[in-house]
Amino acid sequence: MLTIDKIIKAAETLKPVIRKTDLIYSSALSKNNEIYLKSENLQTTGSFKVRGAYVKIAGLTDEQKAKGIIACSAGNHAQGVALAAKKNGIESTIFIPSTAPISKTEATKKFGANIRLVDGVYDDAYNEAVKFQKETGAEFIHPFDDEDVIAGQGTIALEIIDQLPDVDAIIVPIGGGGLISGIAYTIKMLKPDCKVYGVQASGAGSMYYSIEQNKRTELEHVSTFADGTAVKMPGEHTFEFCQKYVDKIVTVSDDEIATAVLTLIEGQKLIAEGAGALSVAAAMFKKLPIENQKVVCVVSGGNIDVNILSRVINRGLLKAGRIADLTIEMLDKPGQLKEVSRIIADLGANVIRVRHNQGGENTDINDCYLKITMETRNLRHLCEIKQALSKAGYRLSSDK
Amino acid sequence: MLTIDKIIKAAETLKPVIRKTDLIYSSALSKNNEIYLKSENLQTTGSFKVRGAYVKIAGLTDEQKAKGIIACSAGNHAQGVALAAKKNGIESTIFIPSTAPISKTEATKKFGANIRLVDGVYDDAYNEAVKFQKETGAEFIHPFDDEDVIAGQGTIALEIIDQLPDVDAIIVPIGGGGLISGIAYTIKMLKPDCKVYGVQASGAGSMYYSIEQNKRTELEHVSTFADGTAVKMPGEHTFEFCQKYVDKIVTVSDDEIATAVLTLIEGQKLIAEGAGALSVAAAMFKKLPIENQKVVCVVSGGNIDVNILSRVINRGLLKAGRIADLTIEMLDKPGQLKEVSRIIADLGANVIRVRHNQGGENTDINDCYLKITMETRNLRHLCEIKQALSKAGYRLSSDK
Repeated sequence: MLTIDKIIKAAETLKPVIRKTDLIYSSALSKNNEIYLKSENLQTTGSFKVRGAYVKIAGLTDEQKAKGIIACSAGNHAQGVALAAKKNGIESTIFIPSTAPISKTEATKKFGANIRLVDGVYDDAYNEAVKFQKETGAEFIHPFDDEDVIAGQGTIALEIIDQLPDVDAIIVPIGGGGLISGIAYTIKMLKPDCKVYGVQASGAGSMYYSIEQNKRTELEHVSTFADGTAVKMPGEHTFEFCQKYVDKIVTVSDDEIATAVLTLIEGQKLIAEGAGALSVAAAMFKKLPIENQKVVCVVSGGNIDVNILSRVINRGLLKAGRIADLTIEMLDKPGQLKEVSRIIADLGANVIRVRHNQGGENTDINDCYLKITMETRNLRHLCEIKQALSKAGYRLSSDK
Repeated sequence: MLTIDKIIKAAETLKPVIRKTDLIYSSALSKNNEIYLKSENLQTTGSFKVRGAYVKIAGLTDEQKAKGIIACSAGNHAQGVALAAKKNGIESTIFIPSTAPISKTEATKKFGANIRLVDGVYDDAYNEAVKFQKETGAEFIHPFDDEDVIAGQGTIALEIIDQLPDVDAIIVPIGGGGLISGIAYTIKMLKPDCKVYGVQASGAGSMYYSIEQNKRTELEHVSTFADGTAVKMPGEHTFEFCQKYVDKIVTVSDDEIATAVLTLIEGQKLIAEGAGALSVAAAMFKKLPIENQKVVCVVSGGNIDVNILSRVINRGLLKAGRIADLTIEMLDKPGQLKEVSRIIADLGANVIRVRHNQGGENTDINDCYLKITMETRNLRHLCEIKQALSKAGYRLSSDK
């Protein structure tokens, strides 16, 4: 049985190992309320996962420790377990599906774990891990459905209460439910008037549906940009904790998550992964009753693949009208490029790239295309520029 | 005359306004030493500049305040002054050159400043600001060469001493020299055995050259990725402070700065602008004698344009062999794409994009090109893949 004593003891255990991550007020996100970010993306290993893993591993008997530990993960749990094992001086073997991003595998390797890359997806890696466990008797560290793990994650709530004693609500990302179970339990024991809200990606809403239907429900298929929360079925323990202690669970779309990631970069100078930004997405897109409240969004992790990051940034800029591609049909005679450039410059946009293509399938033999990529202020600004060009007689064909 | 009392008083003045930014241990950067990051990129307004601006503005007389204030800046100083003016309830007019990134102008507007966009570069905006100052009698807030401003920046050193009492060395970015003047003065008064090192971009090394030549020297031309430090000549005060209190100044290249920005993203989940990452670049590329020491790198700001960020990420990935473009010449018959894909997959790389181009200037009529973009582990991994393809009879032509 989980008790507050266990969580306070977990905090003591973690003290020399983890960072008490900063609680950062966000003026960019606060609108008729005060939004604070619990920056677990700045935690050692780049996510909260090291808390639970360390508490679990530190609590093993010497005999268990001697046999080593096993985990199966494509992401943050792998890094958390690897570091926790290293700090406890014991051997870890981590099974990773071959489809995992190379960067995560490399990061886990750096913490000194034995890596077993398994062809296929998570389930394939899991099966191999179970086989290995039977052969070796090593301890399997579950990513969320374990009371010691949940106790470790609950230490975040102790820190929040210390950092913002009059907090009204805490918003927490949910994958398997370990993080929110620890936080919700701790809060409801120590400060029951504070709300605890959960957020899932709409493409991976297993806890959301399970709570709605009042029984643990397995999704056939999960697909989300918040890959760290792509869990098909909640845990037994975590489902119970959510039923008992969580006030409400909502979902957000991949687009909303990507916008939240970009907002954290621009407004807060913080890198969050999709899963880590779920809480911020829910606050930004008004999914929860948090007007006039002091709200903490737990930003649970920052291990986003830089390739994906690059795509998020570009997509975000295009969507917000901050970058725009224009394809302009022109008569191929002198002076037109200058005229188009003048119109754009007069309206205060900044041309980044110009391509000039002679000919094309749908043009007259005398026509050519000018393709311009420019920085604009917002969608309204882009619209103004398009109108000015049309008015001057240029034909635009939209790229997107 | 600057005194420690003034700096302690400045810290009191700033208490309700700024964040005591976190000091973050970096395992990714520590090598035979302990590297900590003073995260002023997470400061309100995204840089340290608000400290000096606020101290200066709060110290004006009521008569001065009534006339309002003026600043000229394309970057962080603008935002710092705008917020400081707002918090003091006085009017600010900020002159911004039209060449400044749109995002910075927008951010400054958000803090409630009157914005005057001036056609041209910094000097043009500066001339307009001086004209306006003469007309209105408003107070001109200098970005660095002012003792109150320097006192404000010095408060960072008080925080560092409190957060890491046994710090051995502090590495500080230099533009005009306001930040390092405040930090170096404070450190040498309170903890004289702690070294203070300065870092400039090699394309904007005005303080570096001035100290070397023992007199304030104006550069004809500055050009650097660390645009926040593009200053042609050090201030009078700041030059003196650097002469007296700074142990050593070094320079880093644009490539080194970009690598530091990328390392902070991947290793620390922090966004730094070029100027903000100068200190980290100097530590990473071993420009300073910091072995076996406890070192604080001041990450001075995070206001990097997302467009530029996107380019830094891509360039960094290409350079590190983490993304690679291959152009492979193939006979245009079935089965070849499959074979190439198999070779690449067997070696553990991840194909992101494939383009198939029939024909081309230097190919036989039967040939076609396959252009593959893939995620690789590092340059050695990329080399292995190229060798395997060559061995299988494919001709590669390098893109880069």
